[in-house]
Amino acid sequence: MFAVEVRDHMMIAHSLPRPVFGPAQAMHGATFVVDAAFMTEDLDEDGLGVDIGLATTVLAETVKPLNYQNLDELEDFRGRVTTTEVLAKHIFDELRRRIKQGGLGFGGARIKRLRITLHESHVARAWYESEV
Amino acid sequence: MFAVEVRDHMMIAHSLPRPVFGPAQAMHGATFVVDAAFMTEDLDEDGLGVDIGLATTVLAETVKPLNYQNLDELEDFRGRVTTTEVLAKHIFDELRRRIKQGGLGFGGARIKRLRITLHESHVARAWYESEV
Amino acid sequence: MFAVEVRDHMMIAHSLPRPVFGPAQAMHGATFVVDAAFMTEDLDEDGLGVDIGLATTVLAETVKPLNYQNLDELEDFRGRVTTTEVLAKHIFDELRRRIKQGGLGFGGARIKRLRITLHESHVARAWYESEV
Amino acid sequence: MFAVEVRDHMMIAHSLPRPVFGPAQAMHGATFVVDAAFMTEDLDEDGLGVDIGLATTVLAETVKPLNYQNLDELEDFRGRVTTTEVLAKHIFDELRRRIKQGGLGFGGARIKRLRITLHESHVARAWYESEV
Amino acid sequence: MFAVEVRDHMMIAHSLPRPVFGPAQAMHGATFVVDAAFMTEDLDEDGLGVDIGLATTVLAETVKPLNYQNLDELEDFRGRVTTTEVLAKHIFDELRRRIKQGGLGFGGARIKRLRITLHESHVARAWYESEV
Amino acid sequence: MFAVEVRDHMMIAHSLPRPVFGPAQAMHGATFVVDAAFMTEDLDEDGLGVDIGLATTVLAETVKPLNYQNLDELEDFRGRVTTTEVLAKHIFDELRRRIKQGGLGFGGARIKRLRITLHESHVARAWYESEV
Repeated sequence: MFAVEVRDHMMIAHSLPRPVFGPAQAMHGATFVVDAAFMTEDLDEDGLGVDIGLATTVLAETVKPLNYQNLDELEDFRGRVTTTEVLAKHIFDELRRRIKQGGLGFGGARIKRLRITLHESHVARAWYESEV
Repeated sequence: MFAVEVRDHMMIAHSLPRPVFGPAQAMHGATFVVDAAFMTEDLDEDGLGVDIGLATTVLAETVKPLNYQNLDELEDFRGRVTTTEVLAKHIFDELRRRIKQGGLGFGGARIKRLRITLHESHVARAWYESEV
Repeated sequence: MFAVEVRDHMMIAHSLPRPVFGPAQAMHGATFVVDAAFMTEDLDEDGLGVDIGLATTVLAETVKPLNYQNLDELEDFRGRVTTTEVLAKHIFDELRRRIKQGGLGFGGARIKRLRITLHESHVARAWYESEV
Repeated sequence: MFAVEVRDHMMIAHSLPRPVFGPAQAMHGATFVVDAAFMTEDLDEDGLGVDIGLATTVLAETVKPLNYQNLDELEDFRGRVTTTEVLAKHIFDELRRRIKQGGLGFGGARIKRLRITLHESHVARAWYESEV
Repeated sequence: MFAVEVRDHMMIAHSLPRPVFGPAQAMHGATFVVDAAFMTEDLDEDGLGVDIGLATTVLAETVKPLNYQNLDELEDFRGRVTTTEVLAKHIFDELRRRIKQGGLGFGGARIKRLRITLHESHVARAWYESEV
Repeated sequence: MFAVEVRDHMMIAHSLPRPVFGPAQAMHGATFVVDAAFMTEDLDEDGLGVDIGLATTVLAETVKPLNYQNLDELEDFRGRVTTTEVLAKHIFDELRRRIKQGGLGFGGARIKRLRITLHESHVARAWYESEV
């Protein structure tokens, strides 16, 4: 299996209003450094798993609607708890949607798996990985 | 598959008294930066794969009996060679035991796989990953 | 000059309500990984610039009142813009105050300079350094 | 599954003469930080997945013929586009060949999978992973 | 002293045609991860040492003419050896020129010192720091 | 001021037998990732602050007598407490001695300052910097 992984980041505010979150129930925030790994079984005739320029652009477009936002106020997350895991899955879903819509060109069809990793600090991160 | 990964570290002395280890046969030591990745197929109703606070606590409790120790003197390693691989497996086993005993609360039952990574320097690391 | 540097982090929400900040005028947030470097001209009789255990504790105590907070609501920052630079200076001032109050024991008197670095992402950071 | 991963690097020039590469069609270059992960199902009687000293040596030997080279002039890559993915696969193939030839001693027979990761910058990397 | 530091990168080919460089005399290349630290004695009324958005833009503009280039063919480096140190100084000079021309707005006048760091691998880097 | 910085590492055992060290009074160990920064005011006619190949070799030679050692048994540290700070100063002194003896060739005379940084974990490091 081949993989190409690119990195971006977003800076968001949110609250996690459930007792299990203790002090994180209050409004706080995070920088999420976001890695997107695009996995393919083979390479195209240009030696590419995925066009890294397009991959970077699609990741940036996916992250942009969340960057500099208070997630508590976004329609997408109404009634949901925006843990790192939930956000990884959300970015996975949005990125897959963009791939299906042609955001990575013909090469997008070659992608078998996708992994989205969100680094929330130097000591914690979460990811979601699945077939697309 | 979802994963939550947290980081801790330990500073230990040991010797590796077999010819294959060359200069590492003598008493020396290492800082092991330890990553524990908890993998689940789904999230609970709070949007959690595992409670990151509990995960951090359980990892700390698992690492603590080894930290600041001379591993050559620990009962757990009598007659064993404490390579990075062996230590990764040891921490895996101890962490799994704590999960089975309820150290991660009800959420511990959701964990399917566990990966323990030990970084021994900026150029070498080892890990053990398995179903729990 | 000797230096000992320890690391902690905090996850905060804030807004930067001035036109120069563009999209960051809205409520958003950040993880700040915080490094505190304690600089001394010499070492004590135990070979220490500063007791690294105390240094870690004092940094944790300094960061704690900001962690999981919405900085817009804290009295300390009323009427101020909480840029990364301002926060670095704030933590510098608080840490210096704790050192003066004896938080690092007798060793605190040996500290000549202090540098507080706040990493806000993998591509941006700020610091404040000065004599204490 | 156990894994041992070691790191080396190489500094190469190349061009990517296909329209899809835009400005990278011209002669340019890269530092590739190379990670090789050797995966085994069990450990030998010395507690080793693979001898980390031999692993480091074999990786160094594999990287050496590419280091400080203009890849456009190497026979190995005639008519091929030397993307990061292609180079990851090339190093995988060369490393596997050296393992089959005994470069890791008897322990080489225990290796089930191999993953070669090439980090091309702080925001992009690619890997190839397969059974050996 | 306050500092704001931002990061970019460039991927270049070059040769170092002097005997002291050994194998690096041949055409090869490098990824340089470039950090630019802007140092000021105080902050403006918005709490800024320098506008981080402008700083990122100016660094990107400074790096762009070198990115994806064979430095041996650039007029700027005719007759010069493009070591990491020389390139750090070159980027320093170009960045200073852009600051003097107003690339950082009014805030540019506040900058006292500038440090340019080029990371060429995980084990080597160089920097140039001076008053501006 | 120019600087060239190279990295190596060492894995040592030691005890810190003074009450202030708490659990670290017992025999334990550390991986120290060691950075050596060589600072010069100008570059030679080859564009070098210091020959990075020689710098890497001299650092390796300096670190080698400590690597895989129990520091408690080394003559150099008899009666001394081998804190990270003390070890940074020790490596500084040894490296300076080698420079004075010509280990960096003629270029060694150009070096004005030297900084030795020892990273002991992902959350702690110490350094010593001085004129040479």
